[in-house]
Amino acid sequence: MEKPVEAIQSVRLDDDRDMLILLDQTLLPNEKKFLELKELKDIWDAIYLLKVRGAPAIGIAAAYGVYLGTKKSEADAYESLYADFKKAKEYLASSRPTAVNLFWALDRMDARFKKEEGKTAGEVKLALKEEAELIRAEDEKVCESIGQYALSLLEPGWGILTHCNAGTIATAKYGTALAPIYLGQEKGYDFKVFADETRPLLQGARLTAWELQEAGVDVTLICDNMASIVMKEGKVQAVLVGCDRVAANGDTANKIGTSGVAILAKHYGVPFYVCAPLSTVDLKCKTGEDIHIELRPSEEITTQWYEKPMGPKDVKTYNPAFDVTDHKLIAGIVTENGIAYAPFTESLPKMFK
Amino acid sequence: MEKPVEAIQSVRLDDDRDMLILLDQTLLPNEKKFLELKELKDIWDAIYLLKVRGAPAIGIAAAYGVYLGTKKSEADAYESLYADFKKAKEYLASSRPTAVNLFWALDRMDARFKKEEGKTAGEVKLALKEEAELIRAEDEKVCESIGQYALSLLEPGWGILTHCNAGTIATAKYGTALAPIYLGQEKGYDFKVFADETRPLLQGARLTAWELQEAGVDVTLICDNMASIVMKEGKVQAVLVGCDRVAANGDTANKIGTSGVAILAKHYGVPFYVCAPLSTVDLKCKTGEDIHIELRPSEEITTQWYEKPMGPKDVKTYNPAFDVTDHKLIAGIVTENGIAYAPFTESLPKMFK
Repeated sequence: MEKPVEAIQSVRLDDDRDMLILLDQTLLPNEKKFLELKELKDIWDAIYLLKVRGAPAIGIAAAYGVYLGTKKSEADAYESLYADFKKAKEYLASSRPTAVNLFWALDRMDARFKKEEGKTAGEVKLALKEEAELIRAEDEKVCESIGQYALSLLEPGWGILTHCNAGTIATAKYGTALAPIYLGQEKGYDFKVFADETRPLLQGARLTAWELQEAGVDVTLICDNMASIVMKEGKVQAVLVGCDRVAANGDTANKIGTSGVAILAKHYGVPFYVCAPLSTVDLKCKTGEDIHIELRPSEEITTQWYEKPMGPKDVKTYNPAFDVTDHKLIAGIVTENGIAYAPFTESLPKMFK
Repeated sequence: MEKPVEAIQSVRLDDDRDMLILLDQTLLPNEKKFLELKELKDIWDAIYLLKVRGAPAIGIAAAYGVYLGTKKSEADAYESLYADFKKAKEYLASSRPTAVNLFWALDRMDARFKKEEGKTAGEVKLALKEEAELIRAEDEKVCESIGQYALSLLEPGWGILTHCNAGTIATAKYGTALAPIYLGQEKGYDFKVFADETRPLLQGARLTAWELQEAGVDVTLICDNMASIVMKEGKVQAVLVGCDRVAANGDTANKIGTSGVAILAKHYGVPFYVCAPLSTVDLKCKTGEDIHIELRPSEEITTQWYEKPMGPKDVKTYNPAFDVTDHKLIAGIVTENGIAYAPFTESLPKMFK
């Protein structure tokens, strides 16, 4: 048995060398390569080309990016430095116009800049660095806290099934659904993790299985349709998944297939937990009915990754990116401020303390 | 909308040209090529290389093969012809030593040969041809009968979900689970079929979606993990699957993932039907507990079909070929002699009338 290693950090700042260090997720699981990005153009490319993915990781990369872009500026007055900052910010914002966290992080950096009004260029640059580091540190803290709460639900030696990737490489560190796995690993909990490969984009096979194996966690890769037999054979004591959005009643949108796993878990009497940073809990969204499901192209099912097409030419497909898991199937929603239990309409608001 | 066409016949005899005509299933879904096989060696290769697959189709191919091999013989005495027959039979039997139907068909041809004792070589050859055609015709009749019974459970316009391939190309004609689809198509029933792609070997994507599309059936290809949302959205009114083996209590072994589909169907109130020729109903097998589940290699999950590996190097996998669906999840088992309903321990024996 390999010695356990720490959860990988996929986004880091190397301030001494003016670099963003980024794990190239598009090369996984076949190559573990950290990119060393100095130019804003390269950071833009990395976001655009999905070399960094996962909402928190994208936000952190953008915050570091706009800091590094501003650090380069030779402007010595507050106003002229802000002009350069603004240029860098707008440029990075154009890399992935649908990534909400990208804008959130850049706007937060902007607010910090404005807070430093009247300071010297050197002072403002230091403040920007501090803010970017803070964004990273806060995310790590959220993940660690979710991990600790979730860990309290688990026992050493348990089999745990997860779907898609809600892991360390999508966040500052630890991830959400995988956070308790890493924290348990540090304590010698010896979990046995089953990773659904998660068709069609295979995040479970390419990312979850990879990052857990890297950390020395006992992980077994299965096809999505094997979750039933694995549960039936008593190999799984809990299911942990991340989420994209949680409605006020607890209905949860997550990667396609999640609702099926929840139904199987219910059938076999296995508790199904959602790990949800409060930033994903949307109390204004009443139920899952209000969550729009994105439909994606056929090619993801019939040709992507394959040597030859694996479906007939022009076959009709149905390819929803997400599904909504009914709140009645969820044993608990783990946030950074505690675990919400049913009725979620009452417990979820209390998490925002 | 294309004009509906008939269900494809994947195995045929062209007696005038001394040929077995075989759809090369390894080229699907990218190429529709019928092989014209004259030599026993080529028929052996076709079975060995899985160009023909599906228990009934393999049996039919072997029966035609041993007939064609014997037809070539120049022996004119019964005994010397039998020696040539025996050689051809043993040769074909070595092509796929685990295919039960292969031996069943060859033994039946052997029995027929023995029944013709004392006849001329020409008469025996005619009898062998008749027997091979009978094996084919009987399988078609079984499939058609299953199809008629199953069709009585369905209504025009229904959405029907199926898993793996239990279709025309695996049998003489029509298939088992797909038989009612083809028979309904002939009557203008206008079913909307959802085909699970069926990881890891993708029989749903490569075969089911292909053969239904060829026949002009409205078919939509989905990933296995999309069955839940498709049912939730009310798109499916019945699930139809084939099977490998049915136990006396109704527990059913079928392609991996079938049990998960059955649990989802139960959850959403969709009836789940198994289409089972009586040759697959094993009354000596008491329950699913007695069915051995074959485990298959990692490569099927991590590398097969892909341009590059889609799982980390040396990752542990769990790859059972089948799972067992609990009889409590099954609304009915459709055989060629009628539909068995719970309690199956009582209804299944009555099917063997």
